[in-house]
Amino acid sequence: MAGGGAAASALSSPWRALLQRALDANAHLKHSTFFQLATVGGGGRPANRTVVFRGFQEHCDKIQINTDARSNKIGEIKEWPLGEICWYFTDSWEQFRISGIIDVIDGSSPDPAKLQQREKAWFASSVKSRLQYLGPSPGIPVANDDHVTDVHLDPSAGPVDTYCLLTLDPENVRLIT
Amino acid sequence: MAGGGAAASALSSPWRALLQRALDANAHLKHSTFFQLATVGGGGRPANRTVVFRGFQEHCDKIQINTDARSNKIGEIKEWPLGEICWYFTDSWEQFRISGIIDVIDGSSPDPAKLQQREKAWFASSVKSRLQYLGPSPGIPVANDDHVTDVHLDPSAGPVDTYCLLTLDPENVRLIT
Repeated sequence: MAGGGAAASALSSPWRALLQRALDANAHLKHSTFFQLATVGGGGRPANRTVVFRGFQEHCDKIQINTDARSNKIGEIKEWPLGEICWYFTDSWEQFRISGIIDVIDGSSPDPAKLQQREKAWFASSVKSRLQYLGPSPGIPVANDDHVTDVHLDPSAGPVDTYCLLTLDPENVRLIT
Repeated sequence: MAGGGAAASALSSPWRALLQRALDANAHLKHSTFFQLATVGGGGRPANRTVVFRGFQEHCDKIQINTDARSNKIGEIKEWPLGEICWYFTDSWEQFRISGIIDVIDGSSPDPAKLQQREKAWFASSVKSRLQYLGPSPGIPVANDDHVTDVHLDPSAGPVDTYCLLTLDPENVRLIT
């Protein structure tokens, strides 16, 4: 997992060591990197969906999530950027609740450093994973991307317009066992 | 699963048959009855936690959740009763997103019918599960409740004050595969 190694944990927040331990203990399960991200949509309606952990941003504790710029959550998060991750590890029965501010980084970001992060996260994804953004519509995250076929992508090509990086900056982390 | 059988599905909303199929397909996994419930707390902050499906309320599609009246979510839900369930089935890779209004039914409810539902849900829980409400504080849901020890409860005794039934009345259900 990019940026999620034990060495990185040792240098950062104490909860990262606990989270890394849980990731290691549940690593045999494909879904161990899946968690539920709650946000608030129009009219104060809670929204909740499964997303995939894409590692920590370099040199900090921001949690990276790849998403499709066409999904409803992008507009909702831009309006109200608060989120809470519920990350339940099904083998060790540990639950992490991580709340914070979400940053939406799409191709229109005026910040060169953010565009660089987005590019880095794009290339850190498998080519199969990148192919999802060329499909007709955003779908459910899957671990092995075997469903993606009949689309070609140059592996050296940078992020497509539909690719959007979300980063959640943890403000409050609770581990419940 | 109480009220969640195929016979009940045939009589109610179409999505219940799909949900029942997912429950059956994932029944070998203890965590298949766990889902994440998102609500909105003070200051419009999203809150997200893992809870356990306790079946449907009789004669309707309301989803039952047992909870501890001492948990923070009770006050939050009373203030703002909207919720979205994200129920991800890890073996079949199906995700149900179920949004609706949550009703908080604790011992102070003035409605005799609701108190009766609460009592019914209490007795539908295992004695071990009921023992959790006698503990010092609410914790994480666990499938087999083996951690509860050294507390005695008369199996014929009705719900304790700390026991609270939540029911979510589905308004919008999306299955994403």
